[in-house]
Amino acid sequence: MISVLVVGTGNVGFHLYNVFSNIDKIQVAQISSRKLHHIPKADITIIAVSDDAIAEVSSKINNNFVVHTSGASAMNVLKNKTRKGVFYMLQTFSKNKKVDFSEVPFCLETEHKEDYQLLETLANLIGKKVYAISSDQRKILHVAAVFVNNFTNHLFKIGNDICNTHQVPFEVLMPLILETSTKIKTLSPEKAQTGPAIRKDEKTIKNHLDLLNKEQQKIYTILTESIQNGN
Amino acid sequence: MISVLVVGTGNVGFHLYNVFSNIDKIQVAQISSRKLHHIPKADITIIAVSDDAIAEVSSKINNNFVVHTSGASAMNVLKNKTRKGVFYMLQTFSKNKKVDFSEVPFCLETEHKEDYQLLETLANLIGKKVYAISSDQRKILHVAAVFVNNFTNHLFKIGNDICNTHQVPFEVLMPLILETSTKIKTLSPEKAQTGPAIRKDEKTIKNHLDLLNKEQQKIYTILTESIQNGN
Repeated sequence: MISVLVVGTGNVGFHLYNVFSNIDKIQVAQISSRKLHHIPKADITIIAVSDDAIAEVSSKINNNFVVHTSGASAMNVLKNKTRKGVFYMLQTFSKNKKVDFSEVPFCLETEHKEDYQLLETLANLIGKKVYAISSDQRKILHVAAVFVNNFTNHLFKIGNDICNTHQVPFEVLMPLILETSTKIKTLSPEKAQTGPAIRKDEKTIKNHLDLLNKEQQKIYTILTESIQNGN
Repeated sequence: MISVLVVGTGNVGFHLYNVFSNIDKIQVAQISSRKLHHIPKADITIIAVSDDAIAEVSSKINNNFVVHTSGASAMNVLKNKTRKGVFYMLQTFSKNKKVDFSEVPFCLETEHKEDYQLLETLANLIGKKVYAISSDQRKILHVAAVFVNNFTNHLFKIGNDICNTHQVPFEVLMPLILETSTKIKTLSPEKAQTGPAIRKDEKTIKNHLDLLNKEQQKIYTILTESIQNGN
């Protein structure tokens, strides 16, 4: 039996508490990061709060082993005086959307080897893709994730806006969106590129720009140039 | 039996010829757009050439009913003197990657109703998602597709580059990429947004910029601003 305390009630805390609750070998408790007066003991204390709050929240915790869940923060951002680690799930979490933990990569880091084994055991109880990732490697993954997730999602939003403005159903684009992301399982993104930018089809590019608002034009132009420059 | 002539041997022509060949009710022939001396007769002649070549190639064809496959071209770009239409598949095609036509949206347009029925019959023999889309609507879909497909794929390339530069395995990001695109089946892209830009987490944004090269910084900055402005 592993006892786990989840500190924080945001998206990550919400999904972690839910998935831990369903595992017999895990005993889980959850507290809000705003109520740190009576902190339950636990083998692993998981701080799932905003990046800026990790230092302060961890400084108030005396439990033996404390980890944070942030992709953007080094392990030593933790200010507990006990042992430290990181339990970073490289996945996007929304409260309204169920998470398939078997598909979530767990990126783990600890100060001590025996803590790594404990964290790995916990990760394997809820998932199956577990990686040892250092603080430096995690920084890189995190910024790459912003491109492939947050920025990609924003391009979907722009596509949706364009369709809405002109009353065309966005659903027609869904198969293309899915194909674009599954394609790179078998083909590198560089080789998978198609479209007017890579073809240097200037006539189509001009026609497209005429259909866009100023903000969309700016993004269209900079991404087209980047594709054409091979950046 | 529907007889089809595919003119063009690029990605689209390649995949169309292959899928038609497997259907008993379709009799298919294929010719290169560079050899237009002896053009076989067909119920439907599909011109699958680059956008710039559609006018010239179609002007040399006397078959009864000629369609192009371009998302970026209006129906009247065709210069055949017979009947015209459009057979646009809103999907990305690469020669190395098998296409699941049951997931491809067919966007059809014709001058005459009876031709629409013929084109619809053809589309339904190889797929199941068939839409009547006018030339004006297709223009909109095409520019939206550049955002959700070509530009998205370019963000994948940048993510891959960042990982390669710092020797971190890009495969760790694959589940996130798939989740990002399946998420918007149930959640609008606007509601699905997460990350440092929407949180206005300026500290993380600064840290990320420090890890990027100039070109990547430019793209990071413009997309972050666009997310923050709600554009």
